Amino acid sequence: MDFFFNPKGIALIGATPNPLKGGHAILQNLLKGFKGKIHPVNPRYEEILGIPCHKTIADVPDPVDLAIIFIPGKMVPQIIESCAKRGIKGVIIESSGFAESGKEGQQVQKDLTNFARKEGVRLWGPNCMGLVDAVNKNVFSFVSPELWEELIPGDVSLIVQSGMLSGGFLIDCMSHGTMGVSKVCSIGNKMDVDECEILEYMLTDPHTKVIGLYLESITHGRRFMEICRRATKPIVLLKGGKSAMGAKAAMGHTASMAGNGAVIRDAMAQAGVMEATDFHQMMDLCRSLAAYPDIKPTPKGRVAILTYSGGAGIISSDFMENGPIEPAVLSRQSKERLKTIFPQWMPPSNPIDLWPAVEQHGAEKAYGLAIDAACDDPGVDAIFIHAFAGGFRLSLDLDKMSQKAKKMGKPVFCWLIGRQDEARIVQLESHSKGIPVFRELHRAVECMGAVFAHGNRTISVKSEPDNRNDTMAHDTIKVSLKKGKTALDEHLSKTILDACNIPVTKEIIVADEASACQMATQTLKFPVVMKGLLPGEVHKTEAGLVKLNIESRDQVKTAFKDLTQAMDGKGEILIQQQIKGDLELIAGVVKDPQFGVCVMVGLGGVMAEILDDAVFGVAPLSHSDALALMGRLKHQKLLDGFRGAKGVDRDVLAKILCALGDLALAYPQINEIDVNPLIISKGNPIAVDASIIQEQ
Amino acid sequence: MDFFFNPKGIALIGATPNPLKGGHAILQNLLKGFKGKIHPVNPRYEEILGIPCHKTIADVPDPVDLAIIFIPGKMVPQIIESCAKRGIKGVIIESSGFAESGKEGQQVQKDLTNFARKEGVRLWGPNCMGLVDAVNKNVFSFVSPELWEELIPGDVSLIVQSGMLSGGFLIDCMSHGTMGVSKVCSIGNKMDVDECEILEYMLTDPHTKVIGLYLESITHGRRFMEICRRATKPIVLLKGGKSAMGAKAAMGHTASMAGNGAVIRDAMAQAGVMEATDFHQMMDLCRSLAAYPDIKPTPKGRVAILTYSGGAGIISSDFMENGPIEPAVLSRQSKERLKTIFPQWMPPSNPIDLWPAVEQHGAEKAYGLAIDAACDDPGVDAIFIHAFAGGFRLSLDLDKMSQKAKKMGKPVFCWLIGRQDEARIVQLESHSKGIPVFRELHRAVECMGAVFAHGNRTISVKSEPDNRNDTMAHDTIKVSLKKGKTALDEHLSKTILDACNIPVTKEIIVADEASACQMATQTLKFPVVMKGLLPGEVHKTEAGLVKLNIESRDQVKTAFKDLTQAMDGKGEILIQQQIKGDLELIAGVVKDPQFGVCVMVGLGGVMAEILDDAVFGVAPLSHSDALALMGRLKHQKLLDGFRGAKGVDRDVLAKILCALGDLALAYPQINEIDVNPLIISKGNPIAVDASIIQEQ
Repeated sequence: MDFFFNPKGIALIGATPNPLKGGHAILQNLLKGFKGKIHPVNPRYEEILGIPCHKTIADVPDPVDLAIIFIPGKMVPQIIESCAKRGIKGVIIESSGFAESGKEGQQVQKDLTNFARKEGVRLWGPNCMGLVDAVNKNVFSFVSPELWEELIPGDVSLIVQSGMLSGGFLIDCMSHGTMGVSKVCSIGNKMDVDECEILEYMLTDPHTKVIGLYLESITHGRRFMEICRRATKPIVLLKGGKSAMGAKAAMGHTASMAGNGAVIRDAMAQAGVMEATDFHQMMDLCRSLAAYPDIKPTPKGRVAILTYSGGAGIISSDFMENGPIEPAVLSRQSKERLKTIFPQWMPPSNPIDLWPAVEQHGAEKAYGLAIDAACDDPGVDAIFIHAFAGGFRLSLDLDKMSQKAKKMGKPVFCWLIGRQDEARIVQLESHSKGIPVFRELHRAVECMGAVFAHGNRTISVKSEPDNRNDTMAHDTIKVSLKKGKTALDEHLSKTILDACNIPVTKEIIVADEASACQMATQTLKFPVVMKGLLPGEVHKTEAGLVKLNIESRDQVKTAFKDLTQAMDGKGEILIQQQIKGDLELIAGVVKDPQFGVCVMVGLGGVMAEILDDAVFGVAPLSHSDALALMGRLKHQKLLDGFRGAKGVDRDVLAKILCALGDLALAYPQINEIDVNPLIISKGNPIAVDASIIQEQ
Repeated sequence: MDFFFNPKGIALIGATPNPLKGGHAILQNLLKGFKGKIHPVNPRYEEILGIPCHKTIADVPDPVDLAIIFIPGKMVPQIIESCAKRGIKGVIIESSGFAESGKEGQQVQKDLTNFARKEGVRLWGPNCMGLVDAVNKNVFSFVSPELWEELIPGDVSLIVQSGMLSGGFLIDCMSHGTMGVSKVCSIGNKMDVDECEILEYMLTDPHTKVIGLYLESITHGRRFMEICRRATKPIVLLKGGKSAMGAKAAMGHTASMAGNGAVIRDAMAQAGVMEATDFHQMMDLCRSLAAYPDIKPTPKGRVAILTYSGGAGIISSDFMENGPIEPAVLSRQSKERLKTIFPQWMPPSNPIDLWPAVEQHGAEKAYGLAIDAACDDPGVDAIFIHAFAGGFRLSLDLDKMSQKAKKMGKPVFCWLIGRQDEARIVQLESHSKGIPVFRELHRAVECMGAVFAHGNRTISVKSEPDNRNDTMAHDTIKVSLKKGKTALDEHLSKTILDACNIPVTKEIIVADEASACQMATQTLKFPVVMKGLLPGEVHKTEAGLVKLNIESRDQVKTAFKDLTQAMDGKGEILIQQQIKGDLELIAGVVKDPQFGVCVMVGLGGVMAEILDDAVFGVAPLSHSDALALMGRLKHQKLLDGFRGAKGVDRDVLAKILCALGDLALAYPQINEIDVNPLIISKGNPIAVDASIIQEQ
């Protein structure tokens, strides 16, 4: 991939002297920064902007390992062929008119991809803005050359599946001076090079500390996840097309398919990726993480809030409720130190309202002392400075003030409002010193929280799937799968679960009333449940094939008769123990088009209908993956028991979830597993009903 | 109140020629804009800034009806006395050192308030920044005179209980040019004039279209609510101190008591007030509502999204999910019109991705045609324009483009990114034309939603409490209250509820086993419940005083014996029908220090422990209030029934909630009512257990 970012020479196909055209802008951009050889290619010109122009790609002299193409889409395939012939390693195709333009374009794109794979030439795009490298001053893009005036080098690299957004956003962020960037990659239709490869490159890139992605589709879900899991750099993802409506919009854009919102959300959480919700917010998360990528894990980040406004202090505290950070409780020593600048009537506490102290001692002294106190306070993990630019004698030298904090490894964040001109100066200055500054209080608190959440991330998700011993009873599973139809009946499904060491209800198929009675009285004990298993019938309850609360031999006999009649002599009759539970869960397996086998666990019964609380994990799950999965249930405290009921044995539940994933991975013919309900009885989960669907 | 805003003459006490002092800044501000007479008062000077200075307030000549005070707190009481003597109508006290500074200051403030009430002089503040009127150019504040350079008149008035925030925020908003303001009132400790009076003034002020408030406490909750309910202008409230930590911070600030977060949240919703969460967000909500204060009610605002970036279109759609607005479905006519500028391969849909059309036809034509189509489309209620400033040939004349939309009564909102300098120009221009422009996509969608939510508000909350006939059996209630101790037992409590026509379980106190058996078999029918009522014992279940599932005469007898024994011969035994329900609710009444009698309804049973889903309404509730209250439950769809269970009769439930409030209002000695559970059985709510607590 390095020839895309650091080519020795570039052929620009579609170079033109017409200043209104993109081919001209690309050339201008190359001339401003690229240090290697530039070779315009266009049969109509001898030279452009003083550089010799070549008739064809074959004429371009060495060294040249990258081609940038900006010509009508129809002409692209032929040019790619010449590029491959000429020994070009990589081609960035910025033209549009491919898969996004309908069936014909889709075919062209497919053919090109096949060609590239065969010939070994790598293709970037099409339908993209190329790439910008603010550190090395490489702009391989038709983005406006005026961008150069404001290009701020930084630590954040971006991978963006939307041309206009990458270019437009870059101009916005650069000219507003809120952040710098390292590399910005617009990947367009990603017909060959995709987010995975670029992400891998960024993870080893010394100029990249944090990677932000805007994606509408994830081409290789599992590979993407694996790369993210291994990543030591923070990764922030904004996924477009999460809502039903958004997904509809995504279908029409960059020819992408938006995946199942819940699966992607959970897969990303499992891989330790931070999810963003909006464009600027993604940038804010990225620059915050770039400023403090290595926060030590801590249950809650304890924040000292230094404010000139009691009101802003209050709202800051409000925003921290239920998040990964909280207002710090100041030590006695800190309070004593603050007392020396606080008026007598004002007891120091956090948020530290410095306005009276500022009035009496000036901002420098008041804030300075407060920061020193917070730095020395072992109960403070981070410092949140509220600053005001342009008035009220509140001018602060943020850099000077935060030096001690940085030495102590305590991150400093700043909320800044004030006169636009002066605020802008403070903001630019602070950015260059690595202090994240925000205009909105909520965003500042959100980003502080993200930095601490990322610190904790390394604990909860950096785990490899265990080296589990395979304890499945494979013979039983194979026989059962063979015996079953597409939809295996409850008993067969549970036989397979049992073969995977998943607890299931005690049960047996009974041939007649007598053996049913015997089972009920001797083996299972009352109350029992009796069910009719009719091939192909998956909705047993609705079909009247479930008899609950059977308490006597008479009732067993009646149930047997009723079920036999209901099944019209077909099918089998199952008798099983009746489980009285404290909580109903649902567990199962689905196959996601992007991520493959995913294990699901959620609230069942009535709760399922109201709360819609289910989470997905990409299999195989490690034991800690499975525990983390349960922890992501919105109402996970239910698992700890309530009203005197015993909590779920989370280790046992974790083993069940791991086993479900392992089963589906070991038997690819399994398309779906549904354990519903998985009842928690005295703390132990037990599969009460189940259904396995296999491929036909 | 008008003398505060439009005084005939102003005495400035604490005027000084020292340019570093606030008393100087106030004078400068007055000189720049105030059209009436200005009278500096300071015994040490003959004149200040060329204006004659008076020794005492008594020396000030007519006309003078307002004094502004900026002198040390200790000297204030004496000056107020002189002001009252001199016949001054209003005094704005900007000095600090009152209730916020401890006990001594609290006493001074109390005395001053009493003095003012007696003498009829009105006091504004203390510990505040006074007021700024950008339309009439009155700045009665020590806020930096440089503010004047950027003061932008607008339609939004603010009432702010935080001095630094009002001043600082004003400078921030004005210099960033994102919005204009009408009046900004910093009310400080509000020892006399409070938010209610100023809010009432603003509601009749012709220069105010929307009122935004930042409050840490609401002094007179009910009065505030009543004013808001009657208001025809949108009101936006940012309440500081909602979290437990925030409330702690609020205690130390402006000497205010933060109320119960849930009660205030619901009381404001009941009164149709929009709640803000952050400072800039509050401003954004205010300016959006000021632009479009009269949107017609509609189930969902249907938005046409005109974008140059498919990605931004997708994210916009994502943000609309589950909110008050949704992406519009374009009519066939609209699609046909768009086809004329769309490339052939691209079927028009919403979000309307205009980039290819812009490339082919230019931004003006592409956007112009799309806006015309959206304006004419009966399925479109609002237009959301994504604009870019400074590049990509995307320059748009927003005003020109939106004229037709405005004529058609369709609000236009704009998301704008781009080069900082050019974006700023577009933003200022758009603001002056009344088009709300946002930098963050999410904020734009949120504000659009707020405008439509406000349109719907007028339906759901503009209702006066009904003229209900009092159908309470007052004799029964009085007797029962008299008979009970502080905590009335279940039976007495339910006797009172029954007297208010609230359905309760059939039940009776039984003296012996025989009558218990008779009741069980003849009146109640099995199964029954038996409970021991022991004076002062409120936790019956824990004390072993509840016997459920009694199915036979024998069990009745056993239960009777057990209960008698458990109560050691004291107490009474209650027998009641056992209700099998589909859903457990809790209902009740609490007395809030700010809002008085509040009715509560929430999920009960297990749900209560997990979901924390309860809402409050300030009594008396109208029938529609009560219906709206239920509608604010997060999981209100539970009320509609699930798993075949019948939904709650919402009208019956509403009557119960109204009756609970009426009961507590009619009998002020009732401090608390707790109906737990209120079981829904076949759609009908019935009080199964209840407890009324009265004052000792």
